[in-house]
Amino acid sequence: MNKISKVLIANRGEIALRIIRACKELEITSVAIFSEVDVEGIWVRKADECYPILGDVLQAYLNYETIISVAKKAKCDAIHPGYGFLSENADFAKACEEAGIIFIGPKPEHIALFGDKMASKVAMKKVGVPVLEGTNEPIEDKKEAKTIASKIGYPVIIKAAFGGGGRGMRIVRAENEFDKMFEAATNEAVKFFGNGQVFIEKYVENPRHIEVQIIADKYGNVVHLGERDCSIQRRHQKVIEIAPSPKLNNEVRKELFRISTKAMFKLGYESVGTVEFLIDQNDNIYFIEMNTRVQVEHPVTEIISGIDIIQRMIEIADGDKMKYMQEEIKFRGYAIEFRINAENPQKNFMPSTGTIERYLTPNGPGVRLDSSAYTGYKVPANYDSMIGKLIVWALDWGGAVKKAKRALDEFTLEGFPTNIQLHREIVRDEEFKKGKITTNYLDKNMDKFTLDAKNHLEEEEKKIASIMKFIDSVKSKNVKVRM
Amino acid sequence: MNKISKVLIANRGEIALRIIRACKELEITSVAIFSEVDVEGIWVRKADECYPILGDVLQAYLNYETIISVAKKAKCDAIHPGYGFLSENADFAKACEEAGIIFIGPKPEHIALFGDKMASKVAMKKVGVPVLEGTNEPIEDKKEAKTIASKIGYPVIIKAAFGGGGRGMRIVRAENEFDKMFEAATNEAVKFFGNGQVFIEKYVENPRHIEVQIIADKYGNVVHLGERDCSIQRRHQKVIEIAPSPKLNNEVRKELFRISTKAMFKLGYESVGTVEFLIDQNDNIYFIEMNTRVQVEHPVTEIISGIDIIQRMIEIADGDKMKYMQEEIKFRGYAIEFRINAENPQKNFMPSTGTIERYLTPNGPGVRLDSSAYTGYKVPANYDSMIGKLIVWALDWGGAVKKAKRALDEFTLEGFPTNIQLHREIVRDEEFKKGKITTNYLDKNMDKFTLDAKNHLEEEEKKIASIMKFIDSVKSKNVKVRM
Repeated sequence: MNKISKVLIANRGEIALRIIRACKELEITSVAIFSEVDVEGIWVRKADECYPILGDVLQAYLNYETIISVAKKAKCDAIHPGYGFLSENADFAKACEEAGIIFIGPKPEHIALFGDKMASKVAMKKVGVPVLEGTNEPIEDKKEAKTIASKIGYPVIIKAAFGGGGRGMRIVRAENEFDKMFEAATNEAVKFFGNGQVFIEKYVENPRHIEVQIIADKYGNVVHLGERDCSIQRRHQKVIEIAPSPKLNNEVRKELFRISTKAMFKLGYESVGTVEFLIDQNDNIYFIEMNTRVQVEHPVTEIISGIDIIQRMIEIADGDKMKYMQEEIKFRGYAIEFRINAENPQKNFMPSTGTIERYLTPNGPGVRLDSSAYTGYKVPANYDSMIGKLIVWALDWGGAVKKAKRALDEFTLEGFPTNIQLHREIVRDEEFKKGKITTNYLDKNMDKFTLDAKNHLEEEEKKIASIMKFIDSVKSKNVKVRM
Repeated sequence: MNKISKVLIANRGEIALRIIRACKELEITSVAIFSEVDVEGIWVRKADECYPILGDVLQAYLNYETIISVAKKAKCDAIHPGYGFLSENADFAKACEEAGIIFIGPKPEHIALFGDKMASKVAMKKVGVPVLEGTNEPIEDKKEAKTIASKIGYPVIIKAAFGGGGRGMRIVRAENEFDKMFEAATNEAVKFFGNGQVFIEKYVENPRHIEVQIIADKYGNVVHLGERDCSIQRRHQKVIEIAPSPKLNNEVRKELFRISTKAMFKLGYESVGTVEFLIDQNDNIYFIEMNTRVQVEHPVTEIISGIDIIQRMIEIADGDKMKYMQEEIKFRGYAIEFRINAENPQKNFMPSTGTIERYLTPNGPGVRLDSSAYTGYKVPANYDSMIGKLIVWALDWGGAVKKAKRALDEFTLEGFPTNIQLHREIVRDEEFKKGKITTNYLDKNMDKFTLDAKNHLEEEEKKIASIMKFIDSVKSKNVKVRM
């Protein structure tokens, strides 16, 4: 007696398309919403129904009263929030509940708990997860903060208590930098999150960012789908994600799985979620945060486990029991995801916009593309710069890197600058090939990369033109050619 | 000390591109050849080097003296023949050998043996494989043939001794039809293969076509990569291929693996190959033929096993030992391949040609596309009508069928008729969904299918146009809308 038969997707871009595809495969009707600048969005075309939300183009995906009223009007029984926007907004989840609409995600109390970085650390510590040493309460007072920093010992990191995505974050390596950094962090926190409170924690030098994908149903069944290595970041924003981690001690891996599943069981978590850790050079484990939504990088986990995370997320919200228990879940090979961003790495990653003039996408064995782009698509300037994700897979790490090289070389996206060439150079880098990656990889290596995109298409066209010329010249001379 | 560093691809279309991709991933230089009408072929662009072969456009891929001379000129150390064309030509394999070029495929003697359907049955019987009852020698005499047919018992099938692809084949259900059918078969055999000899065998009513993928190295290691169910055929040409078979008794499956690997070991086979069987309704096993090349349908096996068949084929030709032994090979989920043909199912599958005006391809989780098509590509009339293959995967059979539905619905190819709509209707058919498929499935069900392609793109555009109109009308009235 399942209830979910029609889902409103409170999101845009590639994740909206991803959720529509999952709905189609579950034979659930999908309903898209879109702002005025998103009329040409592929998800608007592909959904079974679509509703414009006029007015402010950012509020279109944020104003949850409007979204719930559209869902009611369209007779949706559930809403999928995707990632970003309303996905980690406990009030929205609660409002859905009150409106009699299933929120496809965790319970509001879990969203609220893990949305508060400090509270989440306290909770995780209680259920046996080692966390980063730091303040237990958000701090606004600079002097108090400085005393705590000295106690923890430098380097420390200052983080916005209600932030995310790298905003309101500063690393302080020595006491004499503290004041300046504290002010910068709190100012950013106020600007982006409307709250200047921060907390302070131990900064781990050159760690790997490793996260565990969790699925939990409403009946206390919790499984993990392995880990992802998201060490390749720029300003705390993930750029490349890998599953499994190419260089993780197997004992550490097992421990991460054990503590993550146990913690989620003890805290009564439901839906999909990700437990994020830093692993230092001595294999110490530090919990940093829990993400209570599906993540951008979920495809790498889907590929190695064979499990469709979005489908399972919908089923669990609908009251289904866990479809695959831990012993049935087998991992195979290595998957790497490359975020394709409309940005210019040669100009400090400035976001770029424009119309896609040519779009030739890689394909063939071991290649997946989750993208909302197409030839003629005009990328609006109003949203995140990520326009798609290229994911590759092979049975072994070396094969996956070579696959990535091949697939990235096949990728043509003309019309504005992207980070494709950066990816091409990263997969050719010896350190990357060896899997020697920590969160400072990009900072350390950025200078190595020329970022001069070789224009494959132009080269190919020159080749074809010269062949044509050759054939014509042969024909005009009426000479029979047998090469 | 591997020798292969540069491979000439003696083929065209999607398989040429597939081999180029394998070469790139193995860091081997790829060399394409192409006929005058194939200058715009995507494989010509994607290969590291390319050589036109002028003159007759079919001979471009068949004249092996020319091809070997190009390979020598381009300093290739190996040739990959793909499928069709020269792939099962023992003389070509021998000529390569004599020219000091590695032929990426089996030894000439095995190509010759299995190219002769009758001899191959004798050989397979000797090594313990049950074969279809039939003539031991090719027959040209009608009267003699008729006597044999009576002895075997009707129904019988007449097959060209040196044929393939369904040509020179006739089923005879009763003695009074024999003369007419015999003449038709021998006439076709002469026309297509230059040899009117046929053989006669027991015709199995409503069988499934099940084939086993084999990989064998030069050191006596033989493994199987599971089976494929290729029962969905039209005139003995495969249309849809599935791995594993959705309805195969597990004991029969194991027996097929056992006899296939044993036979290939005993016969000293090398390279990749496929052992083809018919399985009747009582689970009797009948060997029908061995294909000594990579097959069109190899991707479904690659997906469930995770093993790149073309890469392994190249490595084995280069003298490498088997990379994955039987116990390391694990199968996961179900893969289905749909051959995308330029043909008109509403006009008796007449081949169609033309230029691709719009080409929007499916993607996302569990979707692979092996295709040489692109927007603006003009399909030449000179070759096979297959222009690509859509392959889908999911952890269970039901999920794979739903994935297929979703992916086929996303596929837009405008410019000429294709069989995409036929595939869309097959995956919605109850018998197919239950996996109840035998080789007469298409004959039996063709009438059910309307073949009226719903124009998804047109519908989507109407939807967008009406939204645009709505937005404009709202704006023109200067009314604030919050839906």
